Amino acid sequence: MTAAARSAPDRLLAVLAAFDHGHPALSLTDISRRAGLTLTTAHRLVGALTAWGALERDTDGFYHVGLRLWELAALAPRGLALRQVALPYLEDLYEATHENVQLAVRDGSDVVYIEWLSGRSAVGVQIRVGARWPLHATGVGLALLAHETPGFQRDYCAGPLTSFTPYTVTDPDRLRRSLAEVRRTGAAVSSRQVTDDALSVAAPVRGATGQVAAAVSVVVPEADAQVPVLVPAVRLAARGISRALGWQPDRTTGPAV
Amino acid sequence: MTAAARSAPDRLLAVLAAFDHGHPALSLTDISRRAGLTLTTAHRLVGALTAWGALERDTDGFYHVGLRLWELAALAPRGLALRQVALPYLEDLYEATHENVQLAVRDGSDVVYIEWLSGRSAVGVQIRVGARWPLHATGVGLALLAHETPGFQRDYCAGPLTSFTPYTVTDPDRLRRSLAEVRRTGAAVSSRQVTDDALSVAAPVRGATGQVAAAVSVVVPEADAQVPVLVPAVRLAARGISRALGWQPDRTTGPAV
Repeated sequence: MTAAARSAPDRLLAVLAAFDHGHPALSLTDISRRAGLTLTTAHRLVGALTAWGALERDTDGFYHVGLRLWELAALAPRGLALRQVALPYLEDLYEATHENVQLAVRDGSDVVYIEWLSGRSAVGVQIRVGARWPLHATGVGLALLAHETPGFQRDYCAGPLTSFTPYTVTDPDRLRRSLAEVRRTGAAVSSRQVTDDALSVAAPVRGATGQVAAAVSVVVPEADAQVPVLVPAVRLAARGISRALGWQPDRTTGPAV
Repeated sequence: MTAAARSAPDRLLAVLAAFDHGHPALSLTDISRRAGLTLTTAHRLVGALTAWGALERDTDGFYHVGLRLWELAALAPRGLALRQVALPYLEDLYEATHENVQLAVRDGSDVVYIEWLSGRSAVGVQIRVGARWPLHATGVGLALLAHETPGFQRDYCAGPLTSFTPYTVTDPDRLRRSLAEVRRTGAAVSSRQVTDDALSVAAPVRGATGQVAAAVSVVVPEADAQVPVLVPAVRLAARGISRALGWQPDRTTGPAV
């Protein structure tokens, strides 16, 4: 698609979309190329975004995402706002386990990590705030997927399901059975499905309406994972966050958290 | 200014700017009114922003800031990226004091709070992530202002300086003296300048170039504040974050952190 054929909002959003985890600092030429815009158009749009505070220019002439966008993002109910409510419970979970603690939400067929507290155990998987991962591989993803509508689960299980290790469940029937197990036990366990060395235990977080809104997990080295110890701790943290979001157990019609 | 006279980027950014802490959820009519756009234009721009993920529409028809903006904001070097580096040190400061712990950066003549860990002491001041406050009133603001260029400090001190309590320093000479004291001691103390009951102790955080990039503080009830105990703890946390950002003490030409 040529720049001329795109609408004004699309062109401005293309400038923002030029920035990602691999490209957090861009020159004007980089932005023009990555957004598919002429240098003149890129210059004008970057100027408007910089004046507004959505972008910031450093002393070397590179552009970065600006503080104004960060202030705006702090209003996202599924981003910082959720994370702010959850943080005390995540800290308690960290205190109780001293392991890597995560909070994530679903976006399409991915999980997006909203918070990550680093524990004493280094695992091969590099997860950061803002990272995405497919639902079927991670503990948080399984906890979220298990509480989606039957239609969503059916479509997701139909694949394709990407394999990350020899242990990643990519068989639709096996995945469906493991989702039923998540609903029955109130916890999801993902063992060596993302990297060879890591295991995660996750539990769903419910909002005021009883709907699953997020998931919380711990990631530990698989070799010395104490799953029976981790499950109650993670479920307790998830229930604490759910209550803080206004969830009332007796009003929930779905399966127990 | 009429909608017609504004550029396309300005109109799109006006839609985003319609959202703030007091207005995190808006109807299409609200957005159109707050952005000064016709309903037709607002509808078109909100549609583009929603399709992209910058906004999300809830089941009641209200729009919220979307997860995509949050992911983008996670790339802001002065927002989540800084906060991610700082969090372990903020948690250590919280563990050591069990008080309210903050991380803030300067934006124009304001401080913007990047992180806030709630301590055991409730104080009257309600600070949240993303909040702004003028530089001269808060501990973090004084720590940041004291390390700005002489020209910036002169202009800022020339006022006007807003008063929040009878204790807020609004006299330019007194403010200049207190900034010199911050540089001499490496810590800023703001006593009852924001609310009648609170005291904050802050220290500057330096980046790899030695420039002050942020400030860290604790806020406690003024009545039982142990300033001599808090100062070393806050300075230690600030130095830890500075080192994590690549600061090397012997390369710093400015005053000691």
